[in-house]
Amino acid sequence: MTRPWPRDVTDVVAVRRDLHAHPELGFTEIRTAARVDTALRDLGWDVRSGREVFDATGLPGLPEAAVLEHAAGRAAAEGVPEDLVTRFSGGCTAVVADLRGDRPGPRVALRFDMDALPITEASAGDHPPIRRGFASRHPGVMHACGHDGHVAIGLALAAALSTRDFPGTVRLLFQPAEEGVRGAQPMVAAGVCADVDVLLAVHLGFGLPSGRFAPAATELIATSKHLARFTGREAHAAKAPEQGRNALLAAATATLNLHALPRFAGATTRINVGRLRGGVAANVIAGEAELAYETRADSAGVADELARRAEIVVRAAAAMHEVDVELTRTGHATAATTDPAVAAALASAAEGLAEVRATHPLGASDDASLLMRAVQESGGVAGYAIVGSDGPGPPHSPRFDVDEEVLPVAVAWLERAVRGGQW
Amino acid sequence: MTRPWPRDVTDVVAVRRDLHAHPELGFTEIRTAARVDTALRDLGWDVRSGREVFDATGLPGLPEAAVLEHAAGRAAAEGVPEDLVTRFSGGCTAVVADLRGDRPGPRVALRFDMDALPITEASAGDHPPIRRGFASRHPGVMHACGHDGHVAIGLALAAALSTRDFPGTVRLLFQPAEEGVRGAQPMVAAGVCADVDVLLAVHLGFGLPSGRFAPAATELIATSKHLARFTGREAHAAKAPEQGRNALLAAATATLNLHALPRFAGATTRINVGRLRGGVAANVIAGEAELAYETRADSAGVADELARRAEIVVRAAAAMHEVDVELTRTGHATAATTDPAVAAALASAAEGLAEVRATHPLGASDDASLLMRAVQESGGVAGYAIVGSDGPGPPHSPRFDVDEEVLPVAVAWLERAVRGGQW
Amino acid sequence: MTRPWPRDVTDVVAVRRDLHAHPELGFTEIRTAARVDTALRDLGWDVRSGREVFDATGLPGLPEAAVLEHAAGRAAAEGVPEDLVTRFSGGCTAVVADLRGDRPGPRVALRFDMDALPITEASAGDHPPIRRGFASRHPGVMHACGHDGHVAIGLALAAALSTRDFPGTVRLLFQPAEEGVRGAQPMVAAGVCADVDVLLAVHLGFGLPSGRFAPAATELIATSKHLARFTGREAHAAKAPEQGRNALLAAATATLNLHALPRFAGATTRINVGRLRGGVAANVIAGEAELAYETRADSAGVADELARRAEIVVRAAAAMHEVDVELTRTGHATAATTDPAVAAALASAAEGLAEVRATHPLGASDDASLLMRAVQESGGVAGYAIVGSDGPGPPHSPRFDVDEEVLPVAVAWLERAVRGGQW
Amino acid sequence: MTRPWPRDVTDVVAVRRDLHAHPELGFTEIRTAARVDTALRDLGWDVRSGREVFDATGLPGLPEAAVLEHAAGRAAAEGVPEDLVTRFSGGCTAVVADLRGDRPGPRVALRFDMDALPITEASAGDHPPIRRGFASRHPGVMHACGHDGHVAIGLALAAALSTRDFPGTVRLLFQPAEEGVRGAQPMVAAGVCADVDVLLAVHLGFGLPSGRFAPAATELIATSKHLARFTGREAHAAKAPEQGRNALLAAATATLNLHALPRFAGATTRINVGRLRGGVAANVIAGEAELAYETRADSAGVADELARRAEIVVRAAAAMHEVDVELTRTGHATAATTDPAVAAALASAAEGLAEVRATHPLGASDDASLLMRAVQESGGVAGYAIVGSDGPGPPHSPRFDVDEEVLPVAVAWLERAVRGGQW
Repeated sequence: MTRPWPRDVTDVVAVRRDLHAHPELGFTEIRTAARVDTALRDLGWDVRSGREVFDATGLPGLPEAAVLEHAAGRAAAEGVPEDLVTRFSGGCTAVVADLRGDRPGPRVALRFDMDALPITEASAGDHPPIRRGFASRHPGVMHACGHDGHVAIGLALAAALSTRDFPGTVRLLFQPAEEGVRGAQPMVAAGVCADVDVLLAVHLGFGLPSGRFAPAATELIATSKHLARFTGREAHAAKAPEQGRNALLAAATATLNLHALPRFAGATTRINVGRLRGGVAANVIAGEAELAYETRADSAGVADELARRAEIVVRAAAAMHEVDVELTRTGHATAATTDPAVAAALASAAEGLAEVRATHPLGASDDASLLMRAVQESGGVAGYAIVGSDGPGPPHSPRFDVDEEVLPVAVAWLERAVRGGQW
Repeated sequence: MTRPWPRDVTDVVAVRRDLHAHPELGFTEIRTAARVDTALRDLGWDVRSGREVFDATGLPGLPEAAVLEHAAGRAAAEGVPEDLVTRFSGGCTAVVADLRGDRPGPRVALRFDMDALPITEASAGDHPPIRRGFASRHPGVMHACGHDGHVAIGLALAAALSTRDFPGTVRLLFQPAEEGVRGAQPMVAAGVCADVDVLLAVHLGFGLPSGRFAPAATELIATSKHLARFTGREAHAAKAPEQGRNALLAAATATLNLHALPRFAGATTRINVGRLRGGVAANVIAGEAELAYETRADSAGVADELARRAEIVVRAAAAMHEVDVELTRTGHATAATTDPAVAAALASAAEGLAEVRATHPLGASDDASLLMRAVQESGGVAGYAIVGSDGPGPPHSPRFDVDEEVLPVAVAWLERAVRGGQW
Repeated sequence: MTRPWPRDVTDVVAVRRDLHAHPELGFTEIRTAARVDTALRDLGWDVRSGREVFDATGLPGLPEAAVLEHAAGRAAAEGVPEDLVTRFSGGCTAVVADLRGDRPGPRVALRFDMDALPITEASAGDHPPIRRGFASRHPGVMHACGHDGHVAIGLALAAALSTRDFPGTVRLLFQPAEEGVRGAQPMVAAGVCADVDVLLAVHLGFGLPSGRFAPAATELIATSKHLARFTGREAHAAKAPEQGRNALLAAATATLNLHALPRFAGATTRINVGRLRGGVAANVIAGEAELAYETRADSAGVADELARRAEIVVRAAAAMHEVDVELTRTGHATAATTDPAVAAALASAAEGLAEVRATHPLGASDDASLLMRAVQESGGVAGYAIVGSDGPGPPHSPRFDVDEEVLPVAVAWLERAVRGGQW
Repeated sequence: MTRPWPRDVTDVVAVRRDLHAHPELGFTEIRTAARVDTALRDLGWDVRSGREVFDATGLPGLPEAAVLEHAAGRAAAEGVPEDLVTRFSGGCTAVVADLRGDRPGPRVALRFDMDALPITEASAGDHPPIRRGFASRHPGVMHACGHDGHVAIGLALAAALSTRDFPGTVRLLFQPAEEGVRGAQPMVAAGVCADVDVLLAVHLGFGLPSGRFAPAATELIATSKHLARFTGREAHAAKAPEQGRNALLAAATATLNLHALPRFAGATTRINVGRLRGGVAANVIAGEAELAYETRADSAGVADELARRAEIVVRAAAAMHEVDVELTRTGHATAATTDPAVAAALASAAEGLAEVRATHPLGASDDASLLMRAVQESGGVAGYAIVGSDGPGPPHSPRFDVDEEVLPVAVAWLERAVRGGQW
C-alpha cells in the first residue's frame, strides 16, 4: 500500500515527527534524503544529491547489500518515488544544496545529520512519541540522538532563507551516517568543503537545558571505529573440539582486554566493544566472530596511542587461539575546536532568543569535525554549536526525546547568524 | 515459481540428493516432512504427522516466529502443497507411521532424524555434492551430519516393508531437530514410545569406515544445551559509559570461564560456547547479549555436575556486571547403552552385508537416547547402531559427505533385522 | 656489626641521603622514626611517639608479624638503640612533636610522611644515588616518592624553629605508611588533629619543576585500597581437578574484570590490581589467592560508586568458582582542597624563593587528606603544597630521584610561613 | 639445639614417621638423603651420592639459592652432620646404592622418591599424624603423596637384602624432586640407568585399597611443567597508568585462556595454572609476574600438541599487553607402560601377600617414566607398580595419610621379587 508522503517543510515540529516515525540507519536514509531533496528543489535551492556528491562504493562502514536493498524496498513501500529510491540507493544518501543570497558575502555551510540508531524505542505510554503517536514505525530503529530534529531545523531554515535576503552563499549539507562517524569523510572526499568560508554544525541537547545556546562546544573528542573479523575453524564440539580454532574465545578475550586497557593520565579516554557476533550453534566450535569497537580521546595523540594498543590486543587475541583476524577502521572523527569568530557571531545572533553559555562540553564525537578541519585547513573558520533541549532520557537511550519547543528557536538562531554574515 | 517435487522414494540415492540440496534446520523441516508424509501414505502406511504427534508450542529450543514463517514460505516456493505447509508449520514437523506385518510379533520402532545444520557447504569443485550438482540450495544451511541419508534410508525401508511380509508392527519415527537435542523429548511426550517393544536408532559414519556395521555404539554421551540471555542497560559509550550495564562483558566473561571449567578425572567431558550475539553498535554500551552453550559427559552424574557449575558461572558473570540473566535449557540427551539382544539381532542380520564391529564409539550425543530410555524404562529393549561411511570431512564440517554406496546396504540391513524379528 | 647512626639533622642533604640509603616500608619505619625521635628530643621539642600516638593493633593494612620482626632486627643491626626498637615495634612508628613559640598564635601542624616503596632501585651507574653512593641498602625497597626528602625537610625545619622565634605552637607529624594510605587514619584516631588550627602537608615533585612552588595542589583524589583473599579447595591437578575450587581462576577473572570497569563521564577515575599471589605448585589446583587493588576518583561520590562496583566484581568472581572471599579495606584517602587563606600565606612566604604556581595537579592520593579533613571539619584550615623538584624518573619508578638543591629552599619556605603566622 | 637423628632403619613405620615429621621439598631433601646415605653405608651397600650422581647446576626447576641455603641450615639444626649437609647442598640430594648378590643375575634398579609438597598439613585432632604425634614440623610442607613411605620401604628393603641372598645386583635409586617431575632427568643424565636390566618404581595408594597390589599401573601420563616470567614496566597507577606495561593483566589473561584450551577427543588431558605471583602494591602497575603451569596427556603426541598450544597462549598474552615473557620447561615426564615380564614377576611375588589387580590407573604423572624409558630403550624391561593403601584424604590434600600396615607387606613383596629374579 503506497501513500503519498508530505512535501511541506515549514512546520518544523510536523517534519520532525514524520522523520521520527520513519527512522533510517546510516547509509539507508532514503526516505529522509528523498524528503530533503524534494523539499529543497521545491524551495528553489540548487540541489545535488546521491552519487553526485557521495560515493559510497567500498566504504568500510557500509551495511551489507541485503540491508541496503531492504531499506530501498521499505522506502518505496512508504511512498518514495522510484527515481528517488534509485538516486539514494547503494548507501549514497547525501544531499547538498546551495542558494546564493542577494549580496556579496562568505560561503557558509551548515551540516545536518540524518541517521537514526539501532535502538528499540521505549513503548511506555508516557514516552512522548508514544503518547503523541509519532513513535518509530521501524522495529529496532530509533531517532535517539535528535537527528530528526536536525533535519527538520535544516529544512525550516531552507524555507526561511529561500527569500535570498542574506549575504554570500549558503550551503546545506545533509549528511548520512554520522553514527559510526562514517558519513562525513566521503563528503569531504567529494569536495563539498573545498570552497567553504564558514562551516557550522549544530546539535540538540547533550545535557544543555532548553532555553540555552552554546555557540562553542568543547570536548569534541577524537574517535575511531573498528571492525575485527576473526576467522578460525569450525569443528564438532564433542567429536573433535581440538580440531577447531575457536574464534569466539579470541573475541571474548579481546573484549575483556580491550575494556581493560589503561586510563591515560591527563586525558579523557573511552573504549567500548559495542557489538559481538560469533558462532552458529552450541555444538559447533565457533569458526567465525565479528567484533565492533571504538576508541576515543580528547587529544589526537592519545587517540592514536589508544587505537594502536587496541589493535595490539585484538591481534594478540587472534594469535592466542590461532585464528586469523581482519581489522577495518570503519569510521573516524577528530578533535575539533570552534573558532572565536564563529563563536562570537553565534553569541551575537542568540541575543533575545536564549541564554548563551560560552561553552558546553559535548563529551562525545561527531565527524562534523572532519568537515570543520577541512574548512579550517584551507583557511576558513568553523564552529560546533549546541542548542539546549530538555528530555526524558539521555542520548542513545530508548527514552530519548527532544524538546520540540526549541526547534523553531534554533531555526531563528541560525537564520539570524546567516543573515548577519559577521563571522 | 512453483515446481512439482518428487514423490517416488525407492531410489535411495536420488532421495538423499534431493534432501541434501534442500536442507532444513531443526523445526523447519517442512519440505522434508512433507516428502516423508506423502511417500508413506502413498506406500500404504498409517501416518500421523504434524500436531497429531508433536506439540512444539513453547518449546525452549524453538526458533523465532519469523524464522518459522520464512521456512514455510520457502517450502511453499519449493512446491510443497499448501495443506502440508500448514500441517508442518509452527515447528510441528514430526511424522510417525505404522504398518502391521502379516504375523504376530513385537512392535519395532526405528528413529530417523531429518534436520540439517547452520553451516555453509564447501564450494570447492572437488566437493562431491558440488561436482554432482546436488549441493545445498539453502544458503548457510547444510546436511553435514548425514541426516539426509537417514531419511532416505527410512523411506526406502518403508518401501521395502510395504509388502507386509514381517512379524509384528513397524513404526517409523521421523524426528525433527536432533541437532540441539530438541526434537526427541516432545515425541516422547506425545507417547510415541508408549507401546514399543524395540527401539532402534541408526547413524551413518562417525568414524566407522564404509563396509562395516557397529550394532552397538558406545560413548553415547549425556548433554544439555542452554541459552543464556543477559539483559543490562544501554548507554552512550562516550557520554555516560558508567550508566550502562554491560551485557557483553558479562557474556565474554562467561564464555572464557565456561571453557575454563575443569576436566573431570574418570569421565569424558565437553563444554562449548558455540554462539554469542550481543550489542548493537560500537558507540553504545551493550545492553543485551545471548549465549548458546552445551555441556556433555559420558556419565549422567558428571553431566549434571558440569551443567550445575556452568549455570553458576553464567549467573556469576551476570552478577559481576549487574545485568540480569535468563537461563533456558533448550535441549538435552542422556547417556544410553544398546541392549545385548538388540546388538545380537543386528549382528546376525549383518552377515554377508558388512563386517561387524562389536562396538564403535559415537563420542557424541543424540536425543534418540531419550527414546531409548523411554522404551527401556517401560520394559522394552533399545539399540543405537552405526553404519560405516567414508567421507571427505568430519561431521559438522563444510566438507562432510556420506558414502552413497552404503545407503542401500543399510536399508537391507534394517529390512533383514525387521523381518528376522529376533530381538 | 653495630655502628653508631648520625644524630645531627641540620644538613638536610646528608639526612636525606642517609634515609635514602635505609628505606623502610610502611609500619616498619623504625630506624627513620628513631632518628626523628632522637633528633627532635635533642632539639628540645616535646616529643610523643610510638604507642603514645599511634595504635597499630589490628590495622587491616599492617604487615605480617614476621615482616615487622624482620624490620626490628634490621633496625637493631643498623644501630638503633634497643629501647627505640621496642618503642617503634609492632607497626607503631609515628612521631609527634610540639614546640611553643615565644608569642601567641595558632597551632600549626605540618605532616611529613616517612615510608618507602617495595621497588628495587635502579642500579645503572648514571642513577644519582648510585653515582653518589647513597642508593638503597635494603634489597627491594626504595624511596621512590621523595619521603626521604620530606623527613629531612621536617627535621631541618625543626632545627630552624628551635629558636622559638615564632607565634603560636608548631606541631610536627611524622606519619608512617602514607603509601597504601594507611597511616593517617590511626593518627586522626589518636587525636593529633584535635586542637590544630592549621594543617599543612607538603610533597616534593609530582611534575612541578625545580624552582617553583605550588601552595595549593589540585586533584588530590579520593582512593581506597583493598585486599581480597580467595579461599577455595586444593586438589591434585591430574587425579581430581574437579574436586578443586580454583582460587586462581577467581582471582584472574576478578583482575581482568576490575580493570574492565567503565570510565566515568565527568570524573577522573583509576583502578588497579597491583599485586596477586596464589597457589603453590603447577600440579595443585590453587586453593588460595590474594589480590590487592585500589580505586580512585576525583569526586567522593564516584569513588564510592567505583569501590562498590569493584566489590561486586570481586564477590562475583569468587561465586563463579565456588570459592570464598574475604574483602578488607586496608587504606583510604579522601579528596581535599586547600583553603584560600593557607594558599595565600604560602604564596606570600614564597616570594623571592621560587616562582609561585597558583595550582598544580597532584593527580594522585595522599591520606594527608584525612588529616586536612579532620582539621577543616573542626573549624580549622588546611593546605597541600607542592615543592617543585626535577628528577630522572617519575614517582614510583626505579629511576626516581629528588633534586636535592630544592630541599633547603623548601625548609626556608615553611620556616617563613610558620614565622609569618598569617593563615 | 642439635639432637642426634636416628640411624636404624629396620622399623619401617618408625622411619616413615620420622620422615613424615621432617618433610623436605624437591632438591632440599638434605636430612632425608643424609639418613638414606648413612643407613645404606651402615648396611654395607656401595653408596654414591650428592654430586657423584646428580648435577643440579642450572636445572630450570631448582629453587632459589636462598631457599637451598635455608634448607641446609634447617638440616644442620636438625642434627645432620656438617659433611653430609655439604654433600647434599645446592640441590644435589640424590643417593644411589648398589649391592651384588651371591649368584649371577640381572641388575635390578628400584626407584624411591623422597620429596614432599608445599602443603600445610591438616591440624585436626583426628588426623592420624596429629593424633600420633608425627605431623609435619616444617610449616607449609607436608608428605602428602606418600614419599615418606616410599623411602622407608626402600631402606627396610636395603636392610632385608643386606644378606646378599639374591641373584644379580640390586641398585636403589633415591630420587629428589619427583613433584614437578624434575629429579629423574638429571639421574638419567648421570648414567644411573646405563647398565640396568630391570627398572622398577612403586607408589603407595592412588585409589587402590589396602590389601591389593597392582603390578602394572596404567594411565601413567605424559606431562610438562613450565614457568612463565612476564616482564613489563612499573608505573604509578594514578599518575601515569598508561606508562605501565601490565604484567599481571598478561598473566591473568594467560591463566584464563590456558584453562580454556580445548579438551581432546580420544585422549585424557589436563592443564593447570597452579601458581601465580605478580606485582608489588596496589598503587603500582605490576611490572612483573610469574606463572607456573603444567600440561598432561595420556599420549605423547597430544601432550606435545597441548604444550605447543599453551606456549602460544602465554606468548600471545604477553604480546597483548606489550610485556616480555621468558618461558622455561622446569620438568617433564613421559607416558609409560609396564613390560609384561615385569608384571608377571611381580604378580607371582605377590601371592599370599595381597590380592593382585592386573592393572590400576595411576591417572597422574611420574618422572620414573623417564627412568623406565631409558632402560626400555637400551633393551631392558621396566615396571610401575602400585601398593594399595587406604587413607583419609586424596593425594596432595592436607588430610592425606598412608596406611602404615601396608608398609612391611610392600617390603616383603619387593624382597620376594628381587630374590625370585624371574623378570
